[in-house]
Amino acid sequence: MRVLVALGGNALVAADGRARPEDQVAAVRTAADRVADVVARGEEVVLTHGNGPQVGDLLLKNDVAAADVAPVPLDWCVAQTQATIGLITVDALEHALAARGLRRAVCALITRTLVDADDPNFTSPSKPIGRYLPEAEAQALVARGEHWEDRGERGWRRVVPSPEPLEILDRQAVTTLVGAGFLVIANGGGGIPCVREPDGSLRGVEAVIDKDLGAALLAATVEAQVLVLATDVEHALLSYGRPEQRALHRVSVEELRSYAADGHFASGSMGPKVEAVCRFVEGGGTRGVITSLDRIADAVHGKAGTVVERE
Amino acid sequence: MRVLVALGGNALVAADGRARPEDQVAAVRTAADRVADVVARGEEVVLTHGNGPQVGDLLLKNDVAAADVAPVPLDWCVAQTQATIGLITVDALEHALAARGLRRAVCALITRTLVDADDPNFTSPSKPIGRYLPEAEAQALVARGEHWEDRGERGWRRVVPSPEPLEILDRQAVTTLVGAGFLVIANGGGGIPCVREPDGSLRGVEAVIDKDLGAALLAATVEAQVLVLATDVEHALLSYGRPEQRALHRVSVEELRSYAADGHFASGSMGPKVEAVCRFVEGGGTRGVITSLDRIADAVHGKAGTVVERE
Repeated sequence: MRVLVALGGNALVAADGRARPEDQVAAVRTAADRVADVVARGEEVVLTHGNGPQVGDLLLKNDVAAADVAPVPLDWCVAQTQATIGLITVDALEHALAARGLRRAVCALITRTLVDADDPNFTSPSKPIGRYLPEAEAQALVARGEHWEDRGERGWRRVVPSPEPLEILDRQAVTTLVGAGFLVIANGGGGIPCVREPDGSLRGVEAVIDKDLGAALLAATVEAQVLVLATDVEHALLSYGRPEQRALHRVSVEELRSYAADGHFASGSMGPKVEAVCRFVEGGGTRGVITSLDRIADAVHGKAGTVVERE
Repeated sequence: MRVLVALGGNALVAADGRARPEDQVAAVRTAADRVADVVARGEEVVLTHGNGPQVGDLLLKNDVAAADVAPVPLDWCVAQTQATIGLITVDALEHALAARGLRRAVCALITRTLVDADDPNFTSPSKPIGRYLPEAEAQALVARGEHWEDRGERGWRRVVPSPEPLEILDRQAVTTLVGAGFLVIANGGGGIPCVREPDGSLRGVEAVIDKDLGAALLAATVEAQVLVLATDVEHALLSYGRPEQRALHRVSVEELRSYAADGHFASGSMGPKVEAVCRFVEGGGTRGVITSLDRIADAVHGKAGTVVERE
């Protein structure tokens, strides 16, 4: 089977959230072992990943060094995280596969994803990114044209548009490499968001694409049978944090969408994962699973996690 | 013919050396037009590029933001420039090709290149990178383990190892994509320098590979017939800056090596280009050319630049 595995941001940093280079390398090695387990069971894996903490660090560098070096746009930051996470993940996967006696070429591709310039999210940005700031400092950035929101106790935080991913622009390169037997790492951070200009050229935009929705699109693009979203919990939960809280095991798309409509899933975390697996199965995928990193090999066969299957 | 075109750092920034994102995009569009001209003549192009100013900016950001964000290693900086330059070059090339009615898929690959941990350059670093600093500030960084050298009037500058590139580690992905008809952008900045650990795993190292030597290795790896190094002068010059200065047109490997031995070419600029074209032709390449960006289409056929051919 062809399986799209999406590694969440938490799989790429230390357990305490630190994201120094050595933390990222250590975390990625653990993740690579779990992905190699899936390959060892005979599956054909395509890999994608989040990049939240990494993009946050790049934005902070942009700000702190702005007097010395011109800040780079957000789409460049996404590209940079595809490169650094791609680099350490290729290294770690090659090693984990070799340790299991598996010979499989691995590579990382710079991947652009088309979004619509008229996406409503551009006029009402919704995705919080980067660090928290006191109101005064945030207001200075608002004056510079950025959107910042009061997020309560921790302070203000920048929000950016998170438009719908419409098309993996580098799909031909991805499918060529997948078809040639590569374990391809692609569309990291949901893909580098680009809009099509009237003259046909592409332009990167100040936005981030939801990684899970990007993963669902990539899964459909490479015609994967299974989509596994690896996160920090084994199951999606209903009534999270309340006495009646319960884990979701096997569930239909219809039920899952109805739970989502009832507000069971947080918009910034489980919500997009639920939407992603629903879309994937509705679009013809065999199985979509949300589970923890250590359960992904079982999840591929529907034996772990919150499992949605085609009926 | 298959042609490896290497774009020098000067082709990727403004004429005055500024490297803001908009400067890079504008410069890359011009370069993409010249590369598209080569494709329009029916050649199969593989592209690589320098990254000096871009890596310099990333190192400066590393330093200025060090109190807020853990600096990333030099191999990550190289990877980041492969991503950002790759991204804008893919966009610009697709557009330049479409404007000529050419349909050719373009993609950018994260490319690692093997170096030897025992390369003598690791013990005597030779490649100056990044900004100049006053002695006192440079000495503070020396105390932190970096190598800095007094470069005269402009101040001190960091020097890093520039080991020999031995093997394009991602060659299989590059050749698969080239074989499938892609215009591949690969091995940017000479490649991400990696050493092989005793356990077989790879480790990125604090070094930069010379872009031109990396280009010669990539050209051999993809079995290109022609290597064109695009720089800011139309020819390599003998007796540069002296009354007897003269441009080199057609020249044999033997002559060129003898001029190099006589000290005609600066070690940081024309020297590695001369070495790269000599190596390429000695290794079986048909033609190596050093010329300016605007002459590359003629250079492919030996009708511009300093041309070295197999005898």
